[in-house]
Amino acid sequence: MSNAQTVLVVGSVALDSLETPAGQRHECLGGSASYFSVGASFFAPVQVVAVVGDDFPEAHLAHLRARDVNLRGLEVVKGGRTFRWRGRYGSNFGDAQTLETQLNCFEHFDPKLPPEFRQTKLLFLGNIDPDLQLKVLGQLDSPHLVALDTMNFWIQGKREALLRVLSRVDLFILNETEARLLSGETNIYKAADAVRAMGPSTIVIKRGEYGAMLFHEEGLFVCPAWPVRDVVDPTGAGDTFASGLIGHLAREGNQDFATMKRAVVTGTVLASFACEGFSLDRLLALTSGEIARRSGEMASHFAL
Amino acid sequence: MSNAQTVLVVGSVALDSLETPAGQRHECLGGSASYFSVGASFFAPVQVVAVVGDDFPEAHLAHLRARDVNLRGLEVVKGGRTFRWRGRYGSNFGDAQTLETQLNCFEHFDPKLPPEFRQTKLLFLGNIDPDLQLKVLGQLDSPHLVALDTMNFWIQGKREALLRVLSRVDLFILNETEARLLSGETNIYKAADAVRAMGPSTIVIKRGEYGAMLFHEEGLFVCPAWPVRDVVDPTGAGDTFASGLIGHLAREGNQDFATMKRAVVTGTVLASFACEGFSLDRLLALTSGEIARRSGEMASHFAL
Repeated sequence: MSNAQTVLVVGSVALDSLETPAGQRHECLGGSASYFSVGASFFAPVQVVAVVGDDFPEAHLAHLRARDVNLRGLEVVKGGRTFRWRGRYGSNFGDAQTLETQLNCFEHFDPKLPPEFRQTKLLFLGNIDPDLQLKVLGQLDSPHLVALDTMNFWIQGKREALLRVLSRVDLFILNETEARLLSGETNIYKAADAVRAMGPSTIVIKRGEYGAMLFHEEGLFVCPAWPVRDVVDPTGAGDTFASGLIGHLAREGNQDFATMKRAVVTGTVLASFACEGFSLDRLLALTSGEIARRSGEMASHFAL
Repeated sequence: MSNAQTVLVVGSVALDSLETPAGQRHECLGGSASYFSVGASFFAPVQVVAVVGDDFPEAHLAHLRARDVNLRGLEVVKGGRTFRWRGRYGSNFGDAQTLETQLNCFEHFDPKLPPEFRQTKLLFLGNIDPDLQLKVLGQLDSPHLVALDTMNFWIQGKREALLRVLSRVDLFILNETEARLLSGETNIYKAADAVRAMGPSTIVIKRGEYGAMLFHEEGLFVCPAWPVRDVVDPTGAGDTFASGLIGHLAREGNQDFATMKRAVVTGTVLASFACEGFSLDRLLALTSGEIARRSGEMASHFAL
C-alpha cells in the first residue's frame, strides 16, 4: 500500500433509509463517495470531495476516518441538511424502487478540490451532474486515469455535457441498460463499440448477478459474479465495484490488459461483500485477507 | 472420432416456420433431435429416435444423412403429418412467441429403440413428455450418462413423472427460469442445490446471452457466452448447446470436472454458431476447424 497511487473520488455522501427482504435500516451511511472511499481504502490512499450538512452524524465520519480516508475535501454546510435517499428492494433484489429523494445541500454541490488534491493522478467521478464532473476535471493538473460513473438521468437529460466528459475519460464503468440507452444499440457488443468511440479507451459493462465485461483495446474479458447466496442490501454495489477495480489499479500502478482483468475480479469481489450487509456494514468489517481469499476462489470459477 | 462413444438422442424432428428481425423462413428443418444430432455429429456417432410424417421432405433427411446420423430409429408414419411449429422473435431475440403448434404425429410419439440402440451408453433425452422419457430409459441396457432437457410445461404439468426421470438422470441441462420454477428458489445458487438434490449429480444452467453455469460435485464453473454480434435465429440454441456439451463428453470418454468444463465451452461455441443462421443452415456448413478456433478464442475471454 505504501507504493500505491492516491485515488480521488468526487461523489455523494448521504443518509440512506433502506427496506430489503432482509430488513430495514434508517438513515445509515450511504452515497457513492462513501462506498467508493471505504472500498478503495483497502488498496490505496483515498481523497474525498463531497458535501454534507452539519446534521451529518460524527459516527459516520469516524468510520471513514478509521479507514484513513482523507476528508479535507468534504464540505460541511453550516445549517444545511445532508442528502437523503429512501429506497426499497423486492424479493429478486433487482433495481431499487426510490421512495423518497431529498437532495438538500447536494442540490447546490459545487466541488472544490483542496490544493493538495490537484496533483492526484487517479480520479473516480461518481454519478453526479456531468457539468460538475467537467468542473472537477478543470481543477486537476494532469490525471493519468479518469474513471467515470453516470446514470440514465444524465444520459437522457444532459447528453451533450456527458459526451464532453466522455471525451476526456479513460475508463467508463456503466451498466447494460445505460450502455444500450447511450449508444442506441440493442446488441451489447455493438453498444460497447459505440460507447468506446465516444472517448473512453476502456469500458466495463456491469451486468448485476451475471458479472461484468471488460472491453479493452487488447480484447474482451468476461468476469462472472461471485455467487452470493444471501443478498442483504445491494445498495452501493456499483460504487464498491468501481472502488475495487480502481483501487487495484492504484495499487498495481499500471493499466495494462492483464492488470485490468485482475482489477475487474477485485471489483467483483468487493461488490459481493458490499451486498452481504446493510449500508457499509460488511465493508467496514472486511479484511485484506478476506479479499485475497475470495479473489482466489473467484478465479477458480472460470479457470479451465 | 473413431474412439468416440456413440450418443443416442430422443426428441423431435419438426418443420419450423420462423420470423426474426433478420427475415423469415417457411417449414425449414427443426426439432430438438435435428439440432442435437447435427451438432453432436462433429464429435461422435449419433443415433436418433424420433417420429415424422411421410410429408417430411427427403432433402431434410439428406442433411442428417450427410452428417452420418443414424436414422434407423426415425419412425415415418404413413399418411401422417410432421410436427410443425411457427414462431416469432422480437428485436432483442428473447423468448420466442409461439404463433402456432401442430403436434400432428408427434402427439402419439411412442419412442421405440431399435435393438442395436439398446447398448448405447450416452443418452440425451430431449424435451418431450417425462412419461416418454421414462419409457426410453426402460429400453436402455445400462447407460453410463443420461442427460436431460425439459421445459416449464412439464415442470408445471407433469411434476411427479419429471421427478421420477430426474432421479435417474446424471446431467440435467436447464435454463434459469426452469431452475427457479422447479426448485421454488429465487437465488440461482440455492435453486441449483435444490435441483441437484432431486437426482442429477451435475447440472448446467443456461443463461442465454449471459452464458452458462456448471454445478458439479467438484465445484462451480461459470462460462460466458460467445459474443454474437448479429443473431439471425436463436431457434435450437439450447439443443445445440447440449449437442456440443454431450458430443465433447462422448469424444473425450470421461466426465470429470475438467472435461465437463471444456464440454460447456464446446456447447457454448456450438450454440453461438447455431444462432448465426436460420434453422440448421450454419451448423450444416460448419467445420471442425471453426469449432476448434472459436473454442480457443472463447477461452481467451475468461483467461486471466
